[in-house]
Amino acid sequence: MTSRPALAPARSVDDHRQRIEALLRPLAERETERVPMAAALGRRLAEEVYAPLDLPVFRNSAMDGYAVRADSVATVPVTLPLAGVVAAGNAGLHPLPPGSAVKIMTGAPIPPGADCVVPVEDTHGDGATVTIEKTRVAGDFVREPGTDVRAGDLLVAATTVVAPRHVAALAAVGFGDLPVTRRVRAAVLTTGDELVPAGSALAPGQIYNSNGIALAAALTDNGVEVLSVAHSTDDPEEFRRALTAAVATADVVFTSGGVSKGDFEVVKDVLATLGGEFGSVAVQPGGPQGLTVIDGVPVLSFPGNPVSTMVSFEVFARPILRWLAGLPEVATAELELVDPVRSPAGRRQFLRGRVADKSVALVAGPGSHLIATMANADVLIDIPAETTELPAGSMVRVRWL
Amino acid sequence: MTSRPALAPARSVDDHRQRIEALLRPLAERETERVPMAAALGRRLAEEVYAPLDLPVFRNSAMDGYAVRADSVATVPVTLPLAGVVAAGNAGLHPLPPGSAVKIMTGAPIPPGADCVVPVEDTHGDGATVTIEKTRVAGDFVREPGTDVRAGDLLVAATTVVAPRHVAALAAVGFGDLPVTRRVRAAVLTTGDELVPAGSALAPGQIYNSNGIALAAALTDNGVEVLSVAHSTDDPEEFRRALTAAVATADVVFTSGGVSKGDFEVVKDVLATLGGEFGSVAVQPGGPQGLTVIDGVPVLSFPGNPVSTMVSFEVFARPILRWLAGLPEVATAELELVDPVRSPAGRRQFLRGRVADKSVALVAGPGSHLIATMANADVLIDIPAETTELPAGSMVRVRWL
Repeated sequence: MTSRPALAPARSVDDHRQRIEALLRPLAERETERVPMAAALGRRLAEEVYAPLDLPVFRNSAMDGYAVRADSVATVPVTLPLAGVVAAGNAGLHPLPPGSAVKIMTGAPIPPGADCVVPVEDTHGDGATVTIEKTRVAGDFVREPGTDVRAGDLLVAATTVVAPRHVAALAAVGFGDLPVTRRVRAAVLTTGDELVPAGSALAPGQIYNSNGIALAAALTDNGVEVLSVAHSTDDPEEFRRALTAAVATADVVFTSGGVSKGDFEVVKDVLATLGGEFGSVAVQPGGPQGLTVIDGVPVLSFPGNPVSTMVSFEVFARPILRWLAGLPEVATAELELVDPVRSPAGRRQFLRGRVADKSVALVAGPGSHLIATMANADVLIDIPAETTELPAGSMVRVRWL
Repeated sequence: MTSRPALAPARSVDDHRQRIEALLRPLAERETERVPMAAALGRRLAEEVYAPLDLPVFRNSAMDGYAVRADSVATVPVTLPLAGVVAAGNAGLHPLPPGSAVKIMTGAPIPPGADCVVPVEDTHGDGATVTIEKTRVAGDFVREPGTDVRAGDLLVAATTVVAPRHVAALAAVGFGDLPVTRRVRAAVLTTGDELVPAGSALAPGQIYNSNGIALAAALTDNGVEVLSVAHSTDDPEEFRRALTAAVATADVVFTSGGVSKGDFEVVKDVLATLGGEFGSVAVQPGGPQGLTVIDGVPVLSFPGNPVSTMVSFEVFARPILRWLAGLPEVATAELELVDPVRSPAGRRQFLRGRVADKSVALVAGPGSHLIATMANADVLIDIPAETTELPAGSMVRVRWL
């Protein structure tokens, strides 16, 4: 008998997504690693980072000019004897003799006894004296220690995704490496006797495996470290071995193919014996979905049609993976539909669309094999499950790919 | 004599930016390299890529079910003898005997002679025969070759930045590597006797070098490959050596520091002898700027105050670098100012701001040393040169960091 039992009622998209999110959310508590500053760019800061020192570190000049006491320049023009030069990087420990000036560069320490800086533009000198043309008050062009940040103050909050401006601030207080949350680690496992890798000649009945590299790209693009991209034929033993290897190292495993209603559904057949739940989600494309937990590692099983695989990733995995990586949410918008749309009753449909101005046009049909065409899409058009028909000009919700 | 000649009139921000863009724009014509698909993610496609084969490659089934001739199922229910099974990956060369059915899996080749597929849900079978419950017409659930893309059709256009959906399409037609424009290569060279690297103890007058790592992060973040991050003291010979090394390998060199009005302006002093133009741009922070071309390599010299360095990068370099990388333009918006602002006459000012809802608050003052504070900013507030005062509630243009 090859007839099938009646299907369980299909689960909703939101229900299935929430089940996946509940399985992946604990990965937020993954371990911390210290990485060099350059490698921390784009990573999620694991801890609050406090300033270990004041910035400015010491009282210094905001300008190239002359450090003086304000009362020496109360009446101008005034000519003062030059008592020395202090450049950036000098220790700057020599006090300013009363009634004199010290030539000073931007960032150089203010000599003890000086209380303001006269910018070079407002002076002229002869090497032995300087004539000051403009009066100044105490504090002018002096940067006081700790006015940018004080030692012990919070500098960058935990969970911040490190951007260049954070690198600048953290380097300025002397950090050379940073505590970041390690990336979520994924393994990708494609299945199907018909799939061959790039570079092979296609025998009759064969096609190129695109799901492995495409899922890996999608994971990388969303802050996940891809540990392995493997392929198995529809042989259960081979699949079992590949699965064991994937589960041994990854935080989450993605499979594609072998979940539908054919005779050789290796993913469903093997994972069902390991407690996997396989069933129908009320979505098109991507209806058949599987969810298994092996040794605490979630295994998400997507259908093998290339468009189904990519849409499953977008809808079920991408939001939670971006949240885990600290990346911004997937952008959505309400746009006007250029073309009329028909949609199957009771199934939420994600059509591929291309945006121009405030409207969105369909990119080819709903066929889940139309992967070349998908390259032209920039959004998924989200058609609610209860909608069966939308005239051109309707407003629809889209999510950016 | 240390008095200075009168300054040339300051150049406008747009004028200086356009000069930089004119120097960097020819880098759009840089060479092509072939990289493995995984490394092509986020890179700019160097050529139009055409499909080398049809997709689907061959006529195949869109469903798990039974391949039949439509005229065999014109009247239902009908029971047909089962003439075989064809799975995905089978060559599928055996013709369908007239009046029979062949069990078929999704993606498997349609046997010659069959013209439609009856989904398994609409059948029941006993292994020797299958009873079809629903009539079908020719073409139902059959994917014809070339209906996704035809051999010779444009698949992905040149200059496209490769996203996961492009990877999927390109892998599906058998590409294992892709022609991409190589990244722009930059060298970073910081200067200043006062700067020490992370991990050193600070002697009096010293500060940590943040500009090197921060510029490198900003470059990486905008699609540039950073070849080197070097530092030179204010010794002209040392700077000259570091500069020679940088120019020898990079497409563009960024220097920080040594461009102002002090006595030890190593960048200005050395580069001016090599034809460099140093002058004032009507901007705050970041007024002193230098531009030199050595052996065809543009050298952009930013002032050394950390905020000046970062704002110079944002305003003068980032737009053209993103264009060269094929990345989207820097996002801007019009927002309501929470705080009143004063701005120097005749200078365009970029203040650090933090956005909440549709308004933007100042993050600390305008001081160009306030680098720790800059970590809290998410935008630069762009105050036009002619504006000297804006009350709270004014609308201002911001650019996202």
